[in-house]
Amino acid sequence: MTGARPETTIGIFDSGVGGLTVVRALREVLPWADVVYLGDTARVPYGSKSARTVERYSLACLRFLLGYRVSLVLIACNTASATALDSVVAASPVPVIGAVGPGAQAAVQASASGHIAVIGTLATIQSRAYEAALHSLRPHTAVTSHACPLLVPLAEEGWTDGAVAEEVCRRYLEPVFESDPAIDTLVLGCTHYPLLRATIGDVARAVSGRDIAVVDSASSMAAAALAHELAPGSGSLRCFVTDATRLAELAPRFLGVPLSQFELVDL
Amino acid sequence: MTGARPETTIGIFDSGVGGLTVVRALREVLPWADVVYLGDTARVPYGSKSARTVERYSLACLRFLLGYRVSLVLIACNTASATALDSVVAASPVPVIGAVGPGAQAAVQASASGHIAVIGTLATIQSRAYEAALHSLRPHTAVTSHACPLLVPLAEEGWTDGAVAEEVCRRYLEPVFESDPAIDTLVLGCTHYPLLRATIGDVARAVSGRDIAVVDSASSMAAAALAHELAPGSGSLRCFVTDATRLAELAPRFLGVPLSQFELVDL
Repeated sequence: MTGARPETTIGIFDSGVGGLTVVRALREVLPWADVVYLGDTARVPYGSKSARTVERYSLACLRFLLGYRVSLVLIACNTASATALDSVVAASPVPVIGAVGPGAQAAVQASASGHIAVIGTLATIQSRAYEAALHSLRPHTAVTSHACPLLVPLAEEGWTDGAVAEEVCRRYLEPVFESDPAIDTLVLGCTHYPLLRATIGDVARAVSGRDIAVVDSASSMAAAALAHELAPGSGSLRCFVTDATRLAELAPRFLGVPLSQFELVDL
Repeated sequence: MTGARPETTIGIFDSGVGGLTVVRALREVLPWADVVYLGDTARVPYGSKSARTVERYSLACLRFLLGYRVSLVLIACNTASATALDSVVAASPVPVIGAVGPGAQAAVQASASGHIAVIGTLATIQSRAYEAALHSLRPHTAVTSHACPLLVPLAEEGWTDGAVAEEVCRRYLEPVFESDPAIDTLVLGCTHYPLLRATIGDVARAVSGRDIAVVDSASSMAAAALAHELAPGSGSLRCFVTDATRLAELAPRFLGVPLSQFELVDL
């Protein structure tokens, strides 16, 4: 960043392009914010990696963003938020917003029964970060968690409806709603899952027999960013990735508009 | 390696644990060979990454194995073989065997019609390496290729039969056999796919209306290794990985027996 007011810049990182859903949500509430986005597409997905590896990668992403003098960091990746938030906060001289806290807050607001289901990558679920966040917000919340490794490739393949998507979602969601029939809210604990929101909602209704509130982190993270005082910028988006494969195909699905340009970097 | 005859050691690398199917095949024909295996599990999968990134990672794997004084290198990863074989061969002082050549050879031997289908990761298919290998072996082979990104997570999830596996395989294989009804041989161009061999074979039969020969690289690579003169070793297996997540669960599926121990390394 060589602009006049670098202190207006928000840094966002994710393991890949899924975090562009957060950029999209941020644009809606803070259209004038300057955003530097880093997608670690060469090492995506983080969800199947160990906590130690995810922490190492997350700190590399933070260092990269700090080089662009960001004044606020958003960890769009649920896996990184779930396993590395404390390390990133400890290493960062600027405030950090993770995905898990805002997602949990949205779920607590949506749930009448206090029975909440969370789906995410293996690493996010194993971290139990959503349980911890939900319990700190509402101590007696009943939380059912389930890892859904096939949903990320399904979203990237663009198979977001039809027989395969329905069958995969059914296989993941049936045991969730069987284990706790009082669940009324489902948290999409991964930035890729909003692309499957309609199918997930339909299948959740079919297997539970009623409407289920489906919430995700993106809009809650944008709302949390609003709470930080930021001088207005020019609404620019600078996008860095560590690997460019499939970017032209995938990025618009998450950002909502075509990605005009990106820069390739090594971390 | 600090043993007496390091020249007996075969080095094998893969993006993850799928390459253990090659170790398994090698054990059957060369039970006395000492094997050093490297699974780059922190950066798996290679299949969705660019050629440049896969090449960089493959050379790092080669350097690591050479540090253990291997006398032969097997690239168990189809993606790495398809995109980085030339670079690895150029950088290696010892012979290198890739996955694509042996797989193509097995297919040419199995096919009566000369119409062959290849399925693999996005990177393997985009490289067109199987086309090139098949055409160099039998110039007029009709090759139909199709990328199947969901098959790796499906194999790792252990969903190797049942409704989801069948539906996913059907969605991938139907257009393949529709585009060329004379196909009689299907190449599994990814080390993960042999776990889905039964379902893939069943679906291929169902959509084509006849038996289809299903071939993969593992046993052909082992046969190619036999052609190299190697002094007998003690049949040891030393296994290195760059990330240990899910290893206890996944490794036995590919190796056929539990993995007694592994060592964690940074590349």
